[in-house]
Amino acid sequence: MNAEIQKLGNSGQSVYRRRHVKTDGRDVYLYGYSPPDREPVTEELLAAANSAELRWHPLRKEWSIYAAARQNRTYKPSSTDDPLAPSRPGLPPTEIPFSDFDLAVFENRFPSLMSGAKARPSAPDDPATIAPADGRCEVIVYTPKSTGSLATLTQERRELLVHAWIDRYSALFALGNKFVLPFENRGDEVGVTLHHPHGQIYGFSFVPAVQQNAADAFKDGFDLEAKIKSWRKDYEIESAGGLSAFAPPFARFPYEVWLAPVKLRRGPWEFSKEEIAGFATLLGNVTRRYDTYFGRPCPYMLSLHAAPQGAGNSFHFTAQFYPLLRAPGKVKYLASVEQATNIFTVDVLPEQVAAELKKI
Amino acid sequence: MNAEIQKLGNSGQSVYRRRHVKTDGRDVYLYGYSPPDREPVTEELLAAANSAELRWHPLRKEWSIYAAARQNRTYKPSSTDDPLAPSRPGLPPTEIPFSDFDLAVFENRFPSLMSGAKARPSAPDDPATIAPADGRCEVIVYTPKSTGSLATLTQERRELLVHAWIDRYSALFALGNKFVLPFENRGDEVGVTLHHPHGQIYGFSFVPAVQQNAADAFKDGFDLEAKIKSWRKDYEIESAGGLSAFAPPFARFPYEVWLAPVKLRRGPWEFSKEEIAGFATLLGNVTRRYDTYFGRPCPYMLSLHAAPQGAGNSFHFTAQFYPLLRAPGKVKYLASVEQATNIFTVDVLPEQVAAELKKI
Repeated sequence: MNAEIQKLGNSGQSVYRRRHVKTDGRDVYLYGYSPPDREPVTEELLAAANSAELRWHPLRKEWSIYAAARQNRTYKPSSTDDPLAPSRPGLPPTEIPFSDFDLAVFENRFPSLMSGAKARPSAPDDPATIAPADGRCEVIVYTPKSTGSLATLTQERRELLVHAWIDRYSALFALGNKFVLPFENRGDEVGVTLHHPHGQIYGFSFVPAVQQNAADAFKDGFDLEAKIKSWRKDYEIESAGGLSAFAPPFARFPYEVWLAPVKLRRGPWEFSKEEIAGFATLLGNVTRRYDTYFGRPCPYMLSLHAAPQGAGNSFHFTAQFYPLLRAPGKVKYLASVEQATNIFTVDVLPEQVAAELKKI
Repeated sequence: MNAEIQKLGNSGQSVYRRRHVKTDGRDVYLYGYSPPDREPVTEELLAAANSAELRWHPLRKEWSIYAAARQNRTYKPSSTDDPLAPSRPGLPPTEIPFSDFDLAVFENRFPSLMSGAKARPSAPDDPATIAPADGRCEVIVYTPKSTGSLATLTQERRELLVHAWIDRYSALFALGNKFVLPFENRGDEVGVTLHHPHGQIYGFSFVPAVQQNAADAFKDGFDLEAKIKSWRKDYEIESAGGLSAFAPPFARFPYEVWLAPVKLRRGPWEFSKEEIAGFATLLGNVTRRYDTYFGRPCPYMLSLHAAPQGAGNSFHFTAQFYPLLRAPGKVKYLASVEQATNIFTVDVLPEQVAAELKKI
């Protein structure tokens, strides 16, 4: 077997990973249930950005990321031009230099966070606390097909996605990242016009305040397992394989839905085989419920909230869907109040959301 | 003089306020440099919402506001139907039952926060910490004309706006609010399709965590006066009447600009006559610079960050513009990373923003 290919040890399932380094130095990984042993095709040499910095907001007590090279990134590419497709003979090379794959991960060409990031040597007048934007930005391509969604992927493919996330958590923590955020932006309203089913993964060299707050709350005794059980009647939409899909009673987005293992797991890397299957099932079903309820592919943000490094054993994993619709045909806008205070105004009660989505 | 009319004591300027109670119980205030003594016209009786609640997010440690009655609020009204215009004879009554005015304030018909708000008597299964959404939501109409912006109002009208804000701070604090947020949402991308120049004011019964963080930073010695002076060369865009317009070195939005008195003032109520004029000047000029730079009316969120109650004497007022464009023709989207972590990714450095906006 090709030396670049490794069998992963997740839950007794045979999952293979192949590593390939692109000519511009970026990593590509292929994942599959059988060894991805095709030969790579010829690549285009692309310049990768290597400068970005963090600045500290002294009043909000949060970091911001400055990545000026991203200003030139692809903006609303034409839909005939799919950089996430396999590189097919006779067509220009895409980001993935293989003629086929099941699931692929590659380092973002326009990253906000990067390993060995350099802050500019001098910022005018020592304006703020500045640090290099160390970390990692990856793109994760769910399928070689240019269309589809979490709802239309096969269950087998969604499970492969969970296996790949588990491997990326492990790889990005091993690189020294303190918090790893797999996420998916979906739909024009979220700023995405590349409809090839894909997500992204950010590795942060620090723990964002939002995640630190959550870690502190769990350490202080917030018991999500007991809550999920007590919310079953009024907030749960469905459950599968030990995971629950529910509208959290304190949702910030209308139609916000969380997926969580009922039992405390710090991240998907602690899931049993049944929980991996249950998570994959619910990712598909919740997306399908949204699309049915809103009568169109629902624009949403999906983020996976696993324990940051150092959070101890009490952090309970959740995956959070934030749809950008507040009713069929009505977009949810985040405006001054949300941006100035972080206080969200919600038009619909979570218990109503649960009842409506449950009916579908 | 009509008993409803009062002369306000701001900075030696003659400013008058008239209070009127609408037939549905909501307050309307007219402001002007001369007494607004016209008779009110016949009104429509509208049902006002009176139920909303706060719920505590145990992991983010923030309140959210639930105002289900807002789900039925006006969504993208037709542009011929202007509820913020004066009520003109022969036309249906608007929100302001006077045939003319200079500047008007009225209680929002679809408020998220309200005095005497009732939380529903029982929420299923004690889902979360719940409190009534006490507070106040007002709409502030800058001019009787249906078109225009902070850039096109006369300087006299912008100063009247500052006087009205000062009076609203005083009134909303007197009602028991702990934090008062005047703001303006502008443009389709921010979710606003009512182009009549107007803003809003929220009175909160609690101090949001963002504002508490700022109050703590000022108490711990963050010296904005010294910073503004040291940022003059590289971050200042212009100054007027003792106020500075600058791109903060730690901006979260591309093209974010703050206005602040160079000297510590906790809020506009501490402004001198010159500072009121300077603030009014900069509000107009910064909006004009944006519109010129982006080649169109720039969609933005503007929020006024004055000291919350109990913040002590060290809180330094700022007004913050968050544009929703990251370059001419390119919209800034807030997506998963921002929503999941509060960490913003910015494509353009504040020192470049300052240089570009200064040139205009």
